[in-house]
Amino acid sequence: MKSDIPVTSLQRLPVYLNYLKSLPSEGYISSGAIAHALDMGEVLVRKDLAFTAAQGRTRVGYLRKELIAALEDYLGCNDKKRAVIFGAGELGQALMSYGGFSNYGIEVIAAFDSDSAKIGTYVGGKPVYGIENVEEELGRLDAKLAVMCVPARFAQDVVDVTVKCGIKKILNFAPVLLRVPSGTIVRNMDVAANLAILSSMT
Amino acid sequence: MKSDIPVTSLQRLPVYLNYLKSLPSEGYISSGAIAHALDMGEVLVRKDLAFTAAQGRTRVGYLRKELIAALEDYLGCNDKKRAVIFGAGELGQALMSYGGFSNYGIEVIAAFDSDSAKIGTYVGGKPVYGIENVEEELGRLDAKLAVMCVPARFAQDVVDVTVKCGIKKILNFAPVLLRVPSGTIVRNMDVAANLAILSSMT
Repeated sequence: MKSDIPVTSLQRLPVYLNYLKSLPSEGYISSGAIAHALDMGEVLVRKDLAFTAAQGRTRVGYLRKELIAALEDYLGCNDKKRAVIFGAGELGQALMSYGGFSNYGIEVIAAFDSDSAKIGTYVGGKPVYGIENVEEELGRLDAKLAVMCVPARFAQDVVDVTVKCGIKKILNFAPVLLRVPSGTIVRNMDVAANLAILSSMT
Repeated sequence: MKSDIPVTSLQRLPVYLNYLKSLPSEGYISSGAIAHALDMGEVLVRKDLAFTAAQGRTRVGYLRKELIAALEDYLGCNDKKRAVIFGAGELGQALMSYGGFSNYGIEVIAAFDSDSAKIGTYVGGKPVYGIENVEEELGRLDAKLAVMCVPARFAQDVVDVTVKCGIKKILNFAPVLLRVPSGTIVRNMDVAANLAILSSMT
């Protein structure tokens, strides 16, 4: 079912979820009210929400707490998912300490780095392992998600190892294009490129 | 002209640029070769590149260094753009020290924070100012871009101030929906939501 949702719709689901959570959870809300608040088209909102199990009622709309639950269910907020971070530099450490992942059922369990001064330390209560032990540790940790925070020039090599270890979902902060086999998905979070895109938007 | 480009096309331009930069810059490259390397459709690549000033030649394609220059020009890599960061926590500090912004002509010039222990310090050579002086400092700094790295509960208040100060482009890392007047553009970089989206993709 999930394979049918366009990525653009999927990307909007957390936006709806954040908006609904900012309201009291009692009562009903219509797709029109959501569309108006978020400055989007109502048809689009209704189509997006139809990918979830939420059932709207004629004239009143969605029971707010049911819609929140349906969005959380669709986004897997209730399934525990383990993630590891590659690169315990400043960005990696910021993510190790970040508390917001649990809203989506994501648990960051460890980081890997090549710097012997960092290996063996803990950040935000999570261990930093040596990159040379990655195959052994990843087998034990059972992580399904990887977040790349390594410098651009190392990113492809690290990704090749994670792919070999069976990780199929990679969030990439390195400002470089990663080559992965089909079946592996990379989502790019290049901050500088996003700021440039924003700057070019009119 | 730029207003005609779809955001989805605009988002792909840094991907082409990164790919082309990973190759030697001499010689020609065809849209077909780019499409093949990036696992995309050739028509799509050609349409995207047509938004730039790059001129392809029949049968040989684009002169690689001209295409790089056209992409850099379109993305404003040669125009200096000043950005400020709100929130000098771990993520904010990571971005203050990050060297990759200059590839896109972006210069992070300062951060703002409310923590008196941080105000007056320097991170990556850039000053941290007190948020209470934001109107005065922003007037002086002439920044056009703001990056929100403050906790979610403060984000809307901070954004209201930046909007009042004339900033119209905001890159938002806070996991919250920001309300801005029309004419102001927010690009969301919610890391946890992006990891959840990635996890839901099949």
